[in-house]
Amino acid sequence: MASGEGEVMRNKQVIFRDYVTGNPKESDMYVTDSSTIKLKAPQGSVAVLVKNLYLACDPYLRIRMGRIEGSSVFTSFTPGSPLSGFGVAKVLDSGHPEFKEGDLVWGTTGWEEYSLITEPEQLFKIHHTDVPLSYYTGLLGVPGMTAFVGFHEVCSPKRGDSVFVSAAAGAVGQLVGQFAKLMGCYVVGSVGSKEKVDLLKNKLGFDEAFNYKEEHDLDAALKRTYFPKGIDIYFENVGGKMLDAVLLNMRPHGHISVCGMISHYNLNQPQGFSNLTSLIYNRIRMEGFVVFDYFHLYPKFLDMVLPYIREGKIVYLEDIVEGLERGPATLVGLFSGRNVGKQVVLVAPAE
Amino acid sequence: MASGEGEVMRNKQVIFRDYVTGNPKESDMYVTDSSTIKLKAPQGSVAVLVKNLYLACDPYLRIRMGRIEGSSVFTSFTPGSPLSGFGVAKVLDSGHPEFKEGDLVWGTTGWEEYSLITEPEQLFKIHHTDVPLSYYTGLLGVPGMTAFVGFHEVCSPKRGDSVFVSAAAGAVGQLVGQFAKLMGCYVVGSVGSKEKVDLLKNKLGFDEAFNYKEEHDLDAALKRTYFPKGIDIYFENVGGKMLDAVLLNMRPHGHISVCGMISHYNLNQPQGFSNLTSLIYNRIRMEGFVVFDYFHLYPKFLDMVLPYIREGKIVYLEDIVEGLERGPATLVGLFSGRNVGKQVVLVAPAE
Repeated sequence: MASGEGEVMRNKQVIFRDYVTGNPKESDMYVTDSSTIKLKAPQGSVAVLVKNLYLACDPYLRIRMGRIEGSSVFTSFTPGSPLSGFGVAKVLDSGHPEFKEGDLVWGTTGWEEYSLITEPEQLFKIHHTDVPLSYYTGLLGVPGMTAFVGFHEVCSPKRGDSVFVSAAAGAVGQLVGQFAKLMGCYVVGSVGSKEKVDLLKNKLGFDEAFNYKEEHDLDAALKRTYFPKGIDIYFENVGGKMLDAVLLNMRPHGHISVCGMISHYNLNQPQGFSNLTSLIYNRIRMEGFVVFDYFHLYPKFLDMVLPYIREGKIVYLEDIVEGLERGPATLVGLFSGRNVGKQVVLVAPAE
Repeated sequence: MASGEGEVMRNKQVIFRDYVTGNPKESDMYVTDSSTIKLKAPQGSVAVLVKNLYLACDPYLRIRMGRIEGSSVFTSFTPGSPLSGFGVAKVLDSGHPEFKEGDLVWGTTGWEEYSLITEPEQLFKIHHTDVPLSYYTGLLGVPGMTAFVGFHEVCSPKRGDSVFVSAAAGAVGQLVGQFAKLMGCYVVGSVGSKEKVDLLKNKLGFDEAFNYKEEHDLDAALKRTYFPKGIDIYFENVGGKMLDAVLLNMRPHGHISVCGMISHYNLNQPQGFSNLTSLIYNRIRMEGFVVFDYFHLYPKFLDMVLPYIREGKIVYLEDIVEGLERGPATLVGLFSGRNVGKQVVLVAPAE
């Protein structure tokens, strides 16, 4: 397929319609069959032509749907062009010496059947295929690295620490909790449904879990039930009222690793905080991090996590939806808490 | 005076009336002459009987006027008892082997003419009297240590860093700015009056200063005028809208040292923040600290700062009000920004 002139194929795409404020809707995107693509890297370029297999639905995509100014991490999507995000793909043709036809890769790709990747340096070649390929959108990709970096590198955890994780059934949260358990911490997670509470306690090995929607007084719940001695480490995924309640329950010299603040991404109004002064009284270190700064640690991460996967010591949950045309609904569902575990869109099977 | 039975003296006091919500008022305290005190440490005790010379008006006193629950740093004042705070005093009698009559000390004492200090271990003996004694309520006491610790220890500054200080004419802020200049940083301060702007720029050596009350768009002011390349270090004294604007202007991997959030102390309503997610995008470390954790560094601090004082390299401003009876009005004035420099109440001259 990659030899000769390169076949010209219809290329189904999920197009970003226009900048979003508030909650994203399905109508902020549309699916079209009107494009075609030549399955060949342009002569003389270092580009790589890939067939997309899996696409990750990540909360940060909401940020890219907004109008971003001055951020050093993310750029906005371009209205009228396909969305892009992390995915797993197969190389069909390559102008880059490090990639060849048939290679499996993960990295940033388009929300479409085929993509021409003009900066293939950002792709990671997949060497271990005895684990499910879809894992490279999650456990073995950015969410896994995010959990590893945000917990092990930013929080400096110690055996016996009390660890609280919000959005704990999400792609990152479920891994933070398990990494913490594997190093001997006490771990509590907050989630948004009874089903997810059961999941954390019965399948993922969390010590405790609760549904924040059923706790009218988050401060009291944390204080009386889950952390009577306080929280050493908070892995922050949500922001808002949860952060405000956590601030009242941190132990002195505790660490807050700020991975995300999903409750803020759709906000038009400022979120009110009452308890930021706890940072002072309790000598809290609160640190934001961006996983892309830490990719030199990816081999170290694989060395830690691959044995855990092979020995069955990590439970990893995915929610795989089939078909690119279901992409918009699946992405929108992420913000209403519909999914359990990592939300993935299957574009095409590997073979 | 300290020998024999000990004279019994009238002891003027500033009494705390009841727990405060919102802004403190003069009527939350009252001055009384109705108490007497025996100028002698009780037989067999390790207590120290002191004559108070200077009392510091510090913003944190507002915290102690509220009803505090569960804080590990501060305790509430007791309604019906005198306020307490940092001060400079002279020992009249001592049951403690490390203190003797005539010693000058600084540490926590009562808002009254004479105090019996039952835990003298927390007092610091004053060895250097070639500098004004009142400095031990400020530059050479807790505010000085706070500036030193919060800037040098928490922020890890480097020559050439861009440093922003809020409440920059206050006891701590004016020192942070000068310490930063002394190590070759670019320094901007925010204050609440034109008079203070002039002070910072013309007397304290700040590179720039502005009156936040005249800036309707703090974000734009920081971005366009003061920090076009962003802020490396923010020394946080105020919280609120200023913090929210600063978050939009931090450089990647910047540090925020949270010393105080004076705008929050009197708040009954939560403060709205829009820009906390900047912690993530810009990989910011925001760290609260409490100076009391760092007092083992006091000798190191004196070694640094005493030569600066003697060489005239530090400008230190005090606002000394005479008379304990003016204590309540002076303390209340602190929260309306009346004072310029460290607010001190002179209770009695040293001799």
